[in-house]
Amino acid sequence: MAADTHSLDSLVQALRRLPGVGVKSAQRMAFHLLQHDRDGAELLSRALHDAAATVRHCARCHTFTEAEVCATCLDPRRDPTRLCVVETPADQSAVERTAAYDGLYFVLMGRLSPLDGVGPKDIGVHSLLERAGDGTVQEVILATSFTAEGETTAHVLGEALRARGLHVTRLARGVPAGSELEYVDLGTIAHALVDRR
Amino acid sequence: MAADTHSLDSLVQALRRLPGVGVKSAQRMAFHLLQHDRDGAELLSRALHDAAATVRHCARCHTFTEAEVCATCLDPRRDPTRLCVVETPADQSAVERTAAYDGLYFVLMGRLSPLDGVGPKDIGVHSLLERAGDGTVQEVILATSFTAEGETTAHVLGEALRARGLHVTRLARGVPAGSELEYVDLGTIAHALVDRR
Repeated sequence: MAADTHSLDSLVQALRRLPGVGVKSAQRMAFHLLQHDRDGAELLSRALHDAAATVRHCARCHTFTEAEVCATCLDPRRDPTRLCVVETPADQSAVERTAAYDGLYFVLMGRLSPLDGVGPKDIGVHSLLERAGDGTVQEVILATSFTAEGETTAHVLGEALRARGLHVTRLARGVPAGSELEYVDLGTIAHALVDRR
Repeated sequence: MAADTHSLDSLVQALRRLPGVGVKSAQRMAFHLLQHDRDGAELLSRALHDAAATVRHCARCHTFTEAEVCATCLDPRRDPTRLCVVETPADQSAVERTAAYDGLYFVLMGRLSPLDGVGPKDIGVHSLLERAGDGTVQEVILATSFTAEGETTAHVLGEALRARGLHVTRLARGVPAGSELEYVDLGTIAHALVDRR
Protein backbone atom coordinates (compact mmCIF):
# COMPACT_ATOMS: atom_id res chain seq x y z
CA MET A 1 0.00 0.00 0.00
CA ALA A 2 0.98 3.63 -0.37
CA ALA A 3 2.26 6.30 2.01
CA ASP A 4 -1.26 7.54 2.71
CA THR A 5 -2.10 4.30 4.54
CA HIS A 6 0.87 4.32 6.92
CA SER A 7 -1.16 4.05 10.13
CA LEU A 8 -3.30 1.25 8.66
CA ASP A 9 -0.18 -0.69 7.68
CA SER A 10 1.29 -0.12 11.16
CA LEU A 11 -1.92 -1.45 12.71
CA VAL A 12 -1.80 -4.62 10.58
CA GLN A 13 1.86 -5.14 11.54
CA ALA A 14 1.09 -4.60 15.24
CA LEU A 15 -1.86 -7.03 15.17
CA ARG A 16 0.46 -9.70 13.75
CA ARG A 17 2.32 -9.73 17.07
CA LEU A 18 -0.72 -11.41 18.62
CA PRO A 19 -0.23 -15.19 18.84
CA GLY A 20 -1.95 -17.12 16.04
CA VAL A 21 -2.60 -14.03 13.92
CA GLY A 22 -1.17 -14.03 10.39
CA VAL A 23 -1.31 -11.28 7.79
CA LYS A 24 -4.80 -12.22 6.50
CA SER A 25 -6.34 -12.30 9.98
CA ALA A 26 -4.57 -9.05 10.89
CA GLN A 27 -6.01 -7.35 7.79
CA ARG A 28 -9.47 -8.68 8.60
CA MET A 29 -9.20 -7.44 12.21
CA ALA A 30 -7.97 -3.98 11.17
CA PHE A 31 -10.68 -3.71 8.51
CA HIS A 32 -13.39 -4.75 10.96
CA LEU A 33 -12.29 -2.30 13.65
CA LEU A 34 -11.89 0.66 11.27
CA GLN A 35 -15.05 -0.01 9.27
CA HIS A 36 -17.46 -1.27 11.93
CA ASP A 37 -16.07 -0.75 15.45
CA ARG A 38 -13.90 2.34 16.02
CA ASP A 39 -15.10 2.44 19.63
CA GLY A 40 -13.75 -1.10 19.97
CA ALA A 41 -10.39 0.03 18.57
CA GLU A 42 -10.13 2.86 21.11
CA LEU A 43 -11.29 0.57 23.92
CA LEU A 44 -8.70 -2.06 23.03
CA SER A 45 -6.03 0.61 22.72
CA ARG A 46 -6.71 1.86 26.24
CA ALA A 47 -7.05 -1.68 27.68
CA LEU A 48 -3.66 -2.67 26.23
CA HIS A 49 -1.99 0.44 27.59
CA ASP A 50 -3.56 0.09 31.05
CA ALA A 51 -2.77 -3.61 31.34
CA ALA A 52 0.83 -3.21 30.15
CA ALA A 53 1.28 -0.39 32.68
CA THR A 54 -0.41 -1.93 35.74
CA VAL A 55 -0.33 -5.72 35.55
CA ARG A 56 2.62 -7.35 37.32
CA HIS A 57 3.38 -10.62 39.07
CA CYS A 58 2.27 -11.55 42.59
CA ALA A 59 5.34 -11.61 44.85
CA ARG A 60 4.20 -14.89 46.42
CA CYS A 61 2.61 -16.99 43.63
CA HIS A 62 3.79 -15.20 40.44
CA THR A 63 0.28 -14.95 38.92
CA PHE A 64 -0.88 -11.74 37.22
CA THR A 65 -2.09 -9.05 39.64
CA GLU A 66 -2.11 -5.29 40.03
CA ALA A 67 -1.15 -5.49 43.71
CA GLU A 68 2.08 -6.52 45.44
CA VAL A 69 0.46 -9.79 46.52
CA CYS A 70 -2.62 -11.19 44.74
CA ALA A 71 -6.10 -11.49 46.28
CA THR A 72 -5.92 -15.30 46.36
CA CYS A 73 -2.66 -15.35 48.33
CA LEU A 74 -4.11 -12.81 50.80
CA ASP A 75 -7.45 -14.63 51.25
CA PRO A 76 -7.54 -15.87 54.89
CA ARG A 77 -10.21 -18.48 54.04
CA ARG A 78 -7.79 -20.45 51.87
CA ASP A 79 -5.86 -23.41 53.27
CA PRO A 80 -2.18 -22.35 53.43
CA THR A 81 -0.92 -25.92 53.96
CA ARG A 82 -1.57 -26.92 50.33
CA LEU A 83 0.13 -25.43 47.30
CA CYS A 84 -1.03 -26.20 43.75
CA VAL A 85 1.61 -25.68 41.03
CA VAL A 86 0.18 -24.73 37.61
CA GLU A 87 1.76 -23.53 34.37
CA THR A 88 -0.33 -20.43 33.61
CA PRO A 89 -2.98 -18.11 35.10
CA ALA A 90 -5.46 -19.75 32.67
CA ASP A 91 -4.71 -23.15 34.25
CA GLN A 92 -5.12 -21.60 37.70
CA SER A 93 -8.48 -20.20 36.62
CA ALA A 94 -9.53 -23.67 35.36
CA VAL A 95 -8.68 -25.25 38.73
CA GLU A 96 -10.54 -22.44 40.51
CA ARG A 97 -13.68 -23.01 38.45
CA THR A 98 -13.86 -26.65 39.63
CA ALA A 99 -14.55 -25.30 43.16
CA ALA A 100 -12.80 -28.48 44.35
CA TYR A 101 -9.67 -26.78 45.71
CA ASP A 102 -9.29 -24.20 48.47
CA GLY A 103 -5.52 -24.17 48.92
CA LEU A 104 -3.01 -21.69 47.47
CA TYR A 105 -1.23 -21.61 44.12
CA PHE A 106 2.17 -21.20 42.55
CA VAL A 107 2.07 -20.19 38.88
CA LEU A 108 5.20 -21.15 36.93
CA MET A 109 4.35 -18.79 34.01
CA GLY A 110 5.68 -21.43 31.64
CA ARG A 111 7.00 -24.97 31.56
CA LEU A 112 10.38 -26.59 31.11
CA SER A 113 11.17 -26.78 27.41
CA PRO A 114 14.90 -27.32 26.78
CA LEU A 115 14.37 -27.25 23.01
CA ASP A 116 12.94 -23.72 23.26
CA GLY A 117 15.64 -22.70 25.73
CA VAL A 118 13.27 -22.61 28.73
CA GLY A 119 15.23 -23.93 31.70
CA PRO A 120 14.53 -24.24 35.45
CA LYS A 121 15.54 -20.62 36.06
CA ASP A 122 12.92 -19.28 33.60
CA ILE A 123 10.02 -20.94 35.41
CA GLY A 124 11.19 -19.79 38.85
CA VAL A 125 12.10 -23.16 40.39
CA HIS A 126 14.16 -21.38 43.03
CA SER A 127 11.20 -19.18 44.03
CA LEU A 128 8.96 -22.25 44.19
CA LEU A 129 11.37 -24.09 46.49
CA GLU A 130 11.55 -21.03 48.73
CA ARG A 131 7.76 -20.58 48.67
CA ALA A 132 7.07 -24.28 49.37
CA GLY A 133 9.66 -24.35 52.15
CA ASP A 134 8.00 -21.61 54.22
CA GLY A 135 7.22 -24.13 57.00
CA THR A 136 3.43 -23.87 56.49
CA VAL A 137 3.03 -25.76 53.21
CA GLN A 138 2.61 -29.49 53.83
CA GLU A 139 1.58 -30.74 50.40
CA VAL A 140 2.58 -29.57 46.92
CA ILE A 141 0.13 -30.65 44.19
CA LEU A 142 1.77 -30.68 40.75
CA ALA A 143 -0.94 -29.66 38.27
CA THR A 144 1.18 -29.07 35.17
CA SER A 145 -0.18 -30.33 31.83
CA PHE A 146 -0.10 -34.00 30.87
CA THR A 147 2.02 -33.25 27.82
CA ALA A 148 5.67 -34.25 27.37
CA GLU A 149 6.83 -30.82 28.56
CA GLY A 150 4.34 -30.65 31.43
CA GLU A 151 5.34 -34.13 32.61
CA THR A 152 9.04 -33.24 32.45
CA THR A 153 8.34 -30.10 34.46
CA ALA A 154 6.39 -32.11 37.06
CA HIS A 155 9.22 -34.68 37.28
CA VAL A 156 11.96 -32.07 37.79
CA LEU A 157 9.93 -30.07 40.32
CA GLY A 158 8.87 -33.26 42.13
CA GLU A 159 12.49 -34.40 42.55
CA ALA A 160 13.59 -31.00 43.89
CA LEU A 161 10.63 -30.68 46.27
CA ARG A 162 10.95 -34.25 47.62
CA ALA A 163 14.66 -33.66 48.22
CA ARG A 164 13.59 -30.91 50.64
CA GLY A 165 11.34 -33.33 52.49
CA LEU A 166 8.02 -32.01 51.11
CA HIS A 167 5.00 -34.21 50.39
CA VAL A 168 4.45 -34.03 46.63
CA THR A 169 1.37 -35.25 44.72
CA ARG A 170 0.34 -35.16 41.06
CA LEU A 171 -3.15 -34.74 39.53
CA ALA A 172 -4.72 -38.14 38.83
CA ARG A 173 -4.46 -39.46 35.27
CA GLY A 174 -7.42 -41.42 33.91
CA VAL A 175 -10.47 -41.55 31.71
CA PRO A 176 -12.09 -38.08 31.33
CA ALA A 177 -15.61 -37.63 32.72
CA GLY A 178 -18.28 -38.35 30.08
CA SER A 179 -15.97 -40.44 27.86
CA GLU A 180 -16.97 -43.64 26.11
CA LEU A 181 -14.12 -46.08 26.64
CA GLU A 182 -14.08 -47.05 22.95
CA TYR A 183 -12.94 -43.55 21.96
CA VAL A 184 -10.36 -42.96 24.70
CA ASP A 185 -6.72 -43.29 23.58
CA LEU A 186 -4.88 -46.42 24.71
CA GLY A 187 -2.24 -44.59 26.77
CA THR A 188 -4.99 -43.04 28.90
CA ILE A 189 -6.75 -46.40 29.40
CA ALA A 190 -3.43 -48.02 30.36
CA HIS A 191 -2.80 -45.30 32.96
CA ALA A 192 -6.37 -45.62 34.28
CA LEU A 193 -5.83 -49.38 34.68
CA VAL A 194 -2.55 -48.95 36.56
CA ASP A 195 -4.02 -46.25 38.82
CA ARG A 196 -7.33 -48.10 39.39
CA ARG A 197 -8.78 -47.93 42.86
CA MET B 1 -10.97 -13.31 38.71
CA ALA B 2 -10.65 -10.90 41.60
CA ALA B 3 -10.61 -7.09 41.85
CA ASP B 4 -6.82 -7.01 41.61
CA THR B 5 -6.94 -8.21 38.00
CA HIS B 6 -9.39 -5.59 36.71
CA SER B 7 -7.18 -4.29 33.89
CA LEU B 8 -6.34 -7.85 32.80
CA ASP B 9 -10.05 -8.74 32.65
CA SER B 10 -10.75 -5.54 30.69
CA LEU B 11 -8.01 -6.45 28.22
CA VAL B 12 -9.47 -9.94 27.68
CA GLN B 13 -12.94 -8.40 27.13
CA ALA B 14 -11.55 -5.83 24.67
CA LEU B 15 -9.64 -8.48 22.69
CA ARG B 16 -12.89 -10.41 22.25
CA ARG B 17 -14.18 -7.57 20.07
CA LEU B 18 -11.72 -8.66 17.39
CA PRO B 19 -13.44 -10.83 14.75
CA GLY B 20 -12.90 -14.56 15.28
CA VAL B 21 -11.52 -14.17 18.81
CA GLY B 22 -13.32 -16.05 21.59
CA VAL B 23 -12.60 -16.03 25.32
CA LYS B 24 -9.85 -18.69 25.14
CA SER B 25 -7.98 -16.94 22.32
CA ALA B 26 -8.38 -13.58 24.08
CA GLN B 27 -6.88 -15.03 27.27
CA ARG B 28 -4.01 -16.54 25.31
CA MET B 29 -3.35 -13.22 23.53
CA ALA B 30 -3.46 -11.22 26.79
CA PHE B 31 -1.20 -13.74 28.50
CA HIS B 32 1.28 -13.70 25.62
CA LEU B 33 1.47 -9.90 25.48
CA LEU B 34 1.81 -9.42 29.24
CA GLN B 35 4.25 -12.27 29.80
CA HIS B 36 6.40 -12.15 26.68
CA ASP B 37 5.75 -8.98 24.68
CA ARG B 38 4.89 -5.81 26.65
CA ASP B 39 6.52 -3.74 23.91
CA GLY B 40 4.09 -5.38 21.48
CA ALA B 41 1.17 -4.43 23.73
CA GLU B 42 2.25 -0.77 23.81
CA LEU B 43 2.93 -0.80 20.07
CA LEU B 44 -0.50 -2.26 19.32
CA SER B 45 -2.13 0.21 21.71
CA ARG B 46 -0.59 3.17 19.85
CA ALA B 47 -1.28 1.68 16.41
CA LEU B 48 -4.96 1.21 17.27
CA HIS B 49 -5.26 4.75 18.58
CA ASP B 50 -3.46 6.29 15.61
CA ALA B 51 -5.39 4.31 13.02
CA ALA B 52 -8.77 5.02 14.63
CA ALA B 53 -7.89 8.73 14.73
CA THR B 54 -6.40 9.19 11.25
CA VAL B 55 -7.77 6.56 8.84
CA ARG B 56 -10.77 7.70 6.81
CA HIS B 57 -12.29 6.96 3.41
CA CYS B 58 -11.02 8.31 0.09
CA ALA B 59 -13.54 10.83 -1.24
CA ARG B 60 -13.34 9.31 -4.74
CA CYS B 61 -12.96 5.53 -4.31
CA HIS B 62 -13.95 5.01 -0.63
CA THR B 63 -10.86 2.94 0.23
CA PHE B 64 -8.99 3.53 3.49
CA THR B 65 -6.62 6.49 3.39
CA GLU B 66 -5.27 9.23 5.63
CA ALA B 67 -5.66 11.88 2.94
CA GLU B 68 -8.73 13.48 1.36
CA VAL B 69 -8.13 11.48 -1.83
CA CYS B 70 -6.02 8.29 -1.83
CA ALA B 71 -2.65 7.92 -3.56
CA THR B 72 -4.04 5.51 -6.18
CA CYS B 73 -6.80 7.93 -7.26
CA LEU B 74 -4.22 10.74 -7.53
CA ASP B 75 -1.64 8.68 -9.46
CA PRO B 76 -1.37 10.26 -12.96
CA ARG B 77 0.12 7.05 -14.40
CA ARG B 78 -3.15 5.14 -13.88
CA ASP B 79 -5.70 4.78 -16.68
CA PRO B 80 -8.74 6.88 -15.65
CA THR B 81 -11.01 5.32 -18.30
CA ARG B 82 -11.32 2.02 -16.40
CA LEU B 83 -12.87 1.57 -12.96
CA CYS B 84 -12.62 -1.71 -11.05
CA VAL B 85 -15.32 -2.27 -8.40
CA VAL B 86 -14.21 -4.42 -5.43
CA GLU B 87 -15.78 -5.24 -2.06
CA THR B 88 -12.94 -4.43 0.34
CA PRO B 89 -9.47 -2.82 0.50
CA ALA B 90 -8.09 -6.39 0.87
CA ASP B 91 -9.68 -7.32 -2.49
CA GLN B 92 -8.23 -4.12 -4.00
CA SER B 93 -4.82 -5.09 -2.69
CA ALA B 94 -5.20 -8.59 -4.23
CA VAL B 95 -5.99 -7.09 -7.66
CA GLU B 96 -3.03 -4.70 -7.29
CA ARG B 97 -0.65 -7.55 -6.52
CA THR B 98 -1.49 -9.21 -9.87
CA ALA B 99 0.14 -6.21 -11.62
CA ALA B 100 -2.35 -6.91 -14.44
CA TYR B 101 -4.48 -3.80 -13.90
CA ASP B 102 -3.53 -0.13 -14.12
CA GLY B 103 -6.95 1.52 -13.98
CA LEU B 104 -8.69 3.05 -10.96
CA TYR B 105 -10.84 1.50 -8.23
CA PHE B 106 -14.10 1.90 -6.40
CA VAL B 107 -14.26 0.09 -3.06
CA LEU B 108 -17.79 -0.77 -1.91
CA MET B 109 -16.68 -1.46 1.70
CA GLY B 110 -19.18 -4.31 1.80
CA ARG B 111 -21.58 -6.24 -0.40
CA LEU B 112 -25.33 -6.41 -0.74
CA SER B 113 -26.73 -8.72 1.91
CA PRO B 114 -30.46 -8.19 2.45
CA LEU B 115 -30.55 -10.84 5.19
CA ASP B 116 -28.02 -8.84 7.23
CA GLY B 117 -29.79 -5.58 6.42
CA VAL B 118 -27.08 -4.36 4.03
CA GLY B 119 -28.87 -2.56 1.18
CA PRO B 120 -27.72 -0.51 -1.84
CA LYS B 121 -27.36 2.63 0.29
CA ASP B 122 -24.88 0.95 2.67
CA ILE B 123 -22.45 0.05 -0.11
CA GLY B 124 -22.62 3.50 -1.70
CA VAL B 125 -24.34 2.64 -4.99
CA HIS B 126 -25.25 6.30 -5.46
CA SER B 127 -21.60 7.38 -5.05
CA LEU B 128 -20.52 4.66 -7.49
CA LEU B 129 -23.00 5.83 -10.16
CA GLU B 130 -21.79 9.40 -9.68
CA ARG B 131 -18.12 8.32 -9.79
CA ALA B 132 -18.60 6.12 -12.88
CA GLY B 133 -20.59 8.84 -14.64
CA ASP B 134 -17.80 11.44 -14.49
CA GLY B 135 -17.48 11.40 -18.31
CA THR B 136 -13.97 9.89 -18.23
CA VAL B 137 -14.75 6.32 -17.15
CA GLN B 138 -15.50 4.13 -20.18
CA GLU B 139 -15.49 0.66 -18.65
CA VAL B 140 -16.59 -0.55 -15.20
CA ILE B 141 -15.10 -3.93 -14.23
CA LEU B 142 -17.16 -5.67 -11.54
CA ALA B 143 -14.70 -7.61 -9.37
CA THR B 144 -16.97 -8.55 -6.46
CA SER B 145 -16.65 -12.08 -5.04
CA PHE B 146 -18.11 -15.11 -6.82
CA THR B 147 -20.33 -15.91 -3.83
CA ALA B 148 -24.11 -15.60 -3.75
CA GLU B 149 -23.86 -12.14 -2.17
CA GLY B 150 -21.04 -10.99 -4.43
CA GLU B 151 -22.95 -12.15 -7.54
CA THR B 152 -26.11 -10.36 -6.37
CA THR B 153 -24.08 -7.21 -5.81
CA ALA B 154 -22.54 -7.47 -9.28
CA HIS B 155 -25.97 -8.03 -10.83
CA VAL B 156 -27.58 -5.02 -9.13
CA LEU B 157 -24.61 -2.72 -9.85
CA GLY B 158 -24.41 -3.98 -13.46
CA GLU B 159 -28.08 -3.18 -14.10
CA ALA B 160 -27.78 0.33 -12.66
CA LEU B 161 -24.53 1.09 -14.52
CA ARG B 162 -25.79 -0.22 -17.86
CA ALA B 163 -28.97 1.87 -17.46
CA ARG B 164 -26.67 4.90 -17.47
CA GLY B 165 -25.08 3.76 -20.74
CA LEU B 166 -21.79 2.56 -19.22
CA HIS B 167 -19.83 -0.41 -20.56
CA VAL B 168 -19.85 -3.02 -17.77
CA THR B 169 -17.70 -6.18 -17.57
CA ARG B 170 -17.27 -8.91 -14.95
CA LEU B 171 -14.15 -10.88 -13.98
CA ALA B 172 -13.95 -14.14 -15.96
CA ARG B 173 -15.19 -17.27 -14.24
CA GLY B 174 -13.33 -20.51 -14.90
CA VAL B 175 -10.87 -23.13 -13.73
CA PRO B 176 -8.27 -21.70 -11.30
CA ALA B 177 -4.63 -21.71 -12.41
CA GLY B 178 -2.82 -24.86 -11.27
CA SER B 179 -6.02 -26.92 -10.83
CA GLU B 180 -6.40 -30.55 -11.85
CA LEU B 181 -9.78 -30.77 -13.58
CA GLU B 182 -10.72 -33.88 -11.59
CA TYR B 183 -10.79 -31.86 -8.36
CA VAL B 184 -12.57 -28.74 -9.64
CA ASP B 185 -16.24 -28.44 -8.62
CA LEU B 186 -18.80 -29.09 -11.33
CA GLY B 187 -20.33 -25.60 -11.31
CA THR B 188 -16.92 -24.11 -12.08
CA ILE B 189 -16.31 -26.57 -14.93
CA ALA B 190 -19.78 -25.83 -16.36
CA HIS B 191 -19.03 -22.08 -16.30
CA ALA B 192 -15.62 -22.66 -17.88
CA LEU B 193 -17.29 -24.66 -20.68
CA VAL B 194 -19.91 -21.97 -21.35
CA ASP B 195 -17.30 -19.18 -21.28
CA ARG B 196 -14.73 -21.14 -23.37
CA ARG B 197 -12.79 -19.17 -25.94
